Amino acid sequence: MERKTLYPFIELRNGELYIEELPALEIAEKFSTPAYVYSANAFRWWFNEFNSAFSQVEHTTCFAVKANSNVWVLKLLAELGAGADTVSAGEIHRALTAGISPKKIVFAGVGKRPDEIEFALERDILMINVESESELETVNRVGEKLGKKAPIALRVNPEVDPKTHPYISTGLHEAKFGVDYERAVELYKKAKEMKWVNPVGIHFHIGSQITDTSAFGEAAEKVAELVKELHSLGIEVELFDAGGGLGVNYNPQEPPVPSEELAKQLIPAVKELGCKLILEPGRRISANAGVLLTKLLYIKRRPNKTFYIVDAGMNDLARPALYGAYHHIVPVVNKGRKTETVDVVGPICETGDILAKGRELPECSEGDILAVLSAGAYGFTMASNYNSRPRPPEILVEGSSTRVIRQRETISDLLAREF
Amino acid sequence: MERKTLYPFIELRNGELYIEELPALEIAEKFSTPAYVYSANAFRWWFNEFNSAFSQVEHTTCFAVKANSNVWVLKLLAELGAGADTVSAGEIHRALTAGISPKKIVFAGVGKRPDEIEFALERDILMINVESESELETVNRVGEKLGKKAPIALRVNPEVDPKTHPYISTGLHEAKFGVDYERAVELYKKAKEMKWVNPVGIHFHIGSQITDTSAFGEAAEKVAELVKELHSLGIEVELFDAGGGLGVNYNPQEPPVPSEELAKQLIPAVKELGCKLILEPGRRISANAGVLLTKLLYIKRRPNKTFYIVDAGMNDLARPALYGAYHHIVPVVNKGRKTETVDVVGPICETGDILAKGRELPECSEGDILAVLSAGAYGFTMASNYNSRPRPPEILVEGSSTRVIRQRETISDLLAREF
Repeated sequence: MERKTLYPFIELRNGELYIEELPALEIAEKFSTPAYVYSANAFRWWFNEFNSAFSQVEHTTCFAVKANSNVWVLKLLAELGAGADTVSAGEIHRALTAGISPKKIVFAGVGKRPDEIEFALERDILMINVESESELETVNRVGEKLGKKAPIALRVNPEVDPKTHPYISTGLHEAKFGVDYERAVELYKKAKEMKWVNPVGIHFHIGSQITDTSAFGEAAEKVAELVKELHSLGIEVELFDAGGGLGVNYNPQEPPVPSEELAKQLIPAVKELGCKLILEPGRRISANAGVLLTKLLYIKRRPNKTFYIVDAGMNDLARPALYGAYHHIVPVVNKGRKTETVDVVGPICETGDILAKGRELPECSEGDILAVLSAGAYGFTMASNYNSRPRPPEILVEGSSTRVIRQRETISDLLAREF
Repeated sequence: MERKTLYPFIELRNGELYIEELPALEIAEKFSTPAYVYSANAFRWWFNEFNSAFSQVEHTTCFAVKANSNVWVLKLLAELGAGADTVSAGEIHRALTAGISPKKIVFAGVGKRPDEIEFALERDILMINVESESELETVNRVGEKLGKKAPIALRVNPEVDPKTHPYISTGLHEAKFGVDYERAVELYKKAKEMKWVNPVGIHFHIGSQITDTSAFGEAAEKVAELVKELHSLGIEVELFDAGGGLGVNYNPQEPPVPSEELAKQLIPAVKELGCKLILEPGRRISANAGVLLTKLLYIKRRPNKTFYIVDAGMNDLARPALYGAYHHIVPVVNKGRKTETVDVVGPICETGDILAKGRELPECSEGDILAVLSAGAYGFTMASNYNSRPRPPEILVEGSSTRVIRQRETISDLLAREF
């Protein structure tokens, strides 16, 4: 048998796509399409590849819940020791439901509502990453209301350009995030003096899908300078929260950046500072643990173009329409035909509902199943009901067994809150 | 009292925003934020402005459900005689639930699944707008299965450039939609010979948000030529479905294109042909009947930029992030302060979560409520739970009364289908 690994636990066997020990075709037939399908062992593989790179320092790998927030995915990661990087009360609730200890939950985000801050403090999470002076005051007020000192970090902008998509780079002056590097010490002093706030950490975040790890090293160094200054002022910052996402290979032919390389960039700083390291990978751990299965409904041949019209649209997977993102696509059964260049498009009534433009694929027939790879991150979490389409199910594969970890929505679900 | 109408039933009274007879501030206080708020009479106003323009010809105005699919909005339009332009089984179900007669429902869309075609035929809708030869065959097969002759139109591409955003222009060769003009007669002949298909109409769609109505006239003329040829061949096409959305004024300072102008472009063709006209406005009728109310959570002043961080994000209103769309924003209470230039951004952890960039607004304070105008179309229908955020409620205002026509989602709703 000819085996070709696309990603760990996602491979071609004699041209047929397998998720762990199951043919993707069989999964599509059982659960219909479109459907998100994840490999349990792939999540574990990616988590361990990441987490073990940091074994020589005290650390918590807080999975960025926004990438894949299914409770059962979080539970699986929790069992490996993962914490959670959250950005809303909803995400905190998900993490806790999955059994993640509150002491491993970080609450970040630029627009926390006071009721969300209260929700977080009541549950005694590890820390709140504060993004502005005004938020610092809000946290202090909420702490006072609850009679609880709020453990916080300030999110500081190290002004490092990660050279990624402008939508997902976050650490620059022009962005809405964080506080200016130059003002950080002043704000930490203010926090230190506040009665209901306790500055226990420092946070930075330089963007997402970063493949040049030196940007992390540069940021860590700048932030470490700041921590030294804070320590010298008696502000005992202990948690060093190094945000920003390590890039993943959306093309299976390219190798991923090893997590070791990120570790090399971050470990020296925390060793020197004696801080505990907090990490926030999301995409890195989940993207390549999942695929979106979709059926080819219609082939339309026009004078200059061939369209494969599939049953998954931009409501199911927003990334291509929203960011022009590349997702590799394979037919789940490669019949060994010659290739053709096609646009793979969804059923949504918008010209922008395109999964792949000018893509070379093995010639397919109507009714064939295609797998959109790297769909484990920012896939289901961004799905909508646009065009009144029920959202797809999420299926978790482990070995040769499957489990529906989120049921397909029904048409009645769509109307439920209107009556 | 100083009154300034922004849009019908949405006006400023002494600098305070009113939706019909209610201050938007009062609505925000009662239902919290973010919240979609619609004016019942505004929907009626826009529907009548459109529909009455076509009174001299037999016609049905089929509201494009994808723009705003709330059942109670559809019901309100149904009471004025509206039909429905639908693109999924979910939308057909919504239209029927709202009391729209099946004989006023058109089913369009490039990727109809066979079970959706079956759903439509079983309910005896007016017609299915077929987008490819392959779909024609599918419809014929489904008709045979049900023993029902399927009333269809072919969606023909008139190859007219509507000069709009590339994402929402639909009638060109390079797009996934419709069948080529040159092949239309051949396909109609084929349809005519099929046992389970009855070609009763013709459909075209040139795009969305079109302000140059001459494009409609040009398309109608080309399609009318085709209909004449079909009639001469004994193919009795009776329904002339003129798709494409008439533009709306996203800036209240600019006047909308009168629907009369669209009517002038379409009426001559249908009069000459003796066809019944089907129209498909969506945005036109709903966009300016609604606003999205949001609270200003934090003001962040950075060296070169001021951010207003609000509690509505790209998950609530996707258009600005997805299309770079302009939405006018007003504070619901204008305190008469001087203006400042700000970025209005949402709470989502993405740099692209921007509602307005470099916008001049009256200086606001934290806690103030802002109204994002023109949010009645492609607002709630595109909302997602990204960042595990419950979707906002939809509130219908009529006179001085309010009604929750969709309840705010709760955190438990988010997890409901995972257990």
